[in-house]
Amino acid sequence: MPILSRKSVPKDPDATKERILDAALDVFSAKGYHDTRVDEIVEKSSTSKGSVYFHFPSKQSIFLALVDHFADMLERHVIEAIQHENAGIDRVRAALTACLDTFGRYRRLAKILLVQAAGLGTVFEEKRQEVLSRFSALVQIYLEEAVALGEIPPLDSEVVSQAWAGAINSLVIRWVYTGSPNPERILSTLLPLLLRGVGFEEKQS
Amino acid sequence: MPILSRKSVPKDPDATKERILDAALDVFSAKGYHDTRVDEIVEKSSTSKGSVYFHFPSKQSIFLALVDHFADMLERHVIEAIQHENAGIDRVRAALTACLDTFGRYRRLAKILLVQAAGLGTVFEEKRQEVLSRFSALVQIYLEEAVALGEIPPLDSEVVSQAWAGAINSLVIRWVYTGSPNPERILSTLLPLLLRGVGFEEKQS
Repeated sequence: MPILSRKSVPKDPDATKERILDAALDVFSAKGYHDTRVDEIVEKSSTSKGSVYFHFPSKQSIFLALVDHFADMLERHVIEAIQHENAGIDRVRAALTACLDTFGRYRRLAKILLVQAAGLGTVFEEKRQEVLSRFSALVQIYLEEAVALGEIPPLDSEVVSQAWAGAINSLVIRWVYTGSPNPERILSTLLPLLLRGVGFEEKQS
Repeated sequence: MPILSRKSVPKDPDATKERILDAALDVFSAKGYHDTRVDEIVEKSSTSKGSVYFHFPSKQSIFLALVDHFADMLERHVIEAIQHENAGIDRVRAALTACLDTFGRYRRLAKILLVQAAGLGTVFEEKRQEVLSRFSALVQIYLEEAVALGEIPPLDSEVVSQAWAGAINSLVIRWVYTGSPNPERILSTLLPLLLRGVGFEEKQS
């Protein structure tokens, strides 16, 4: 699954970094975080031990780079999705849809990041809070736009966006653990739920 | 903070267990999970090393017993709260209120369980999922009652109750980490949000 764009010029440091992250994703997926050795990532990436340690001083730093990569991708997908929409509630809807789509498309990555990451303890918990905050900060902006446009009544946008991020996070973790409910089912229930919650009346789908 | 009822007959095994858990809460709060030694819990509990190890083979098992204790208490508070309410949406509201009240009253315990617990890795992550599932299973029952009574339209009660549990969990974690938003603010925004979300129109407060 080529989640990281691969370039064909291996001497480019960014390309090398991406090869390493691609390889790390494969090895973490196959063996789990704890049983992965950095040497296996070196081998799989067809780079050198020196390159890997140059970019990433430890297994944990490789892992955290993957989390950042996923968070960047999530943010990029959300921002791309909202660009096609008018400001306001359409953007809120697009952001939620893009978020769940991203998890749905990258389940393997989501599983590693959400489930195996638990083994990293507080370091990861802080990282997870950071990713959730980034997502909820985006949603907060779109919610405030919708309020400014008079599409929904004024609200405590900080609490609401945090609640939404938590709801999505919790459902995605459940899906990743148990395979159910899947992102389509989450989306079809959650989207009207959240939008109605802030006082926006959608047409029933 | 006497979160565990103390009995005055120390030979009763349940009373001994509670003394140990009370002491563990004090020591974990003061020193954090990682820096706590079982010996300190033994000393603080005024029991014996033998008693502690009889009930709890490891520091981790003491910690997980505290989590279970908190989950039991949360469940008890929710069930007590709904008994004074008619079936249906009043119970949903009472359950959410009781849940946030419980976190608000036992912030120190919540903090230990939610934040320091991250150091326990997958064991704790599974425990957290278990506690969230217990809470969302309760909410699911009350939601289905409200649907059966015609107070709200039919819905995917599994997804909705999970979403609610996730929203609450996320806000409580944020509060525990940063001190804001506090449970009163969470409740005043979240309650109308969630109830409107399932199609129930509350009077504006």
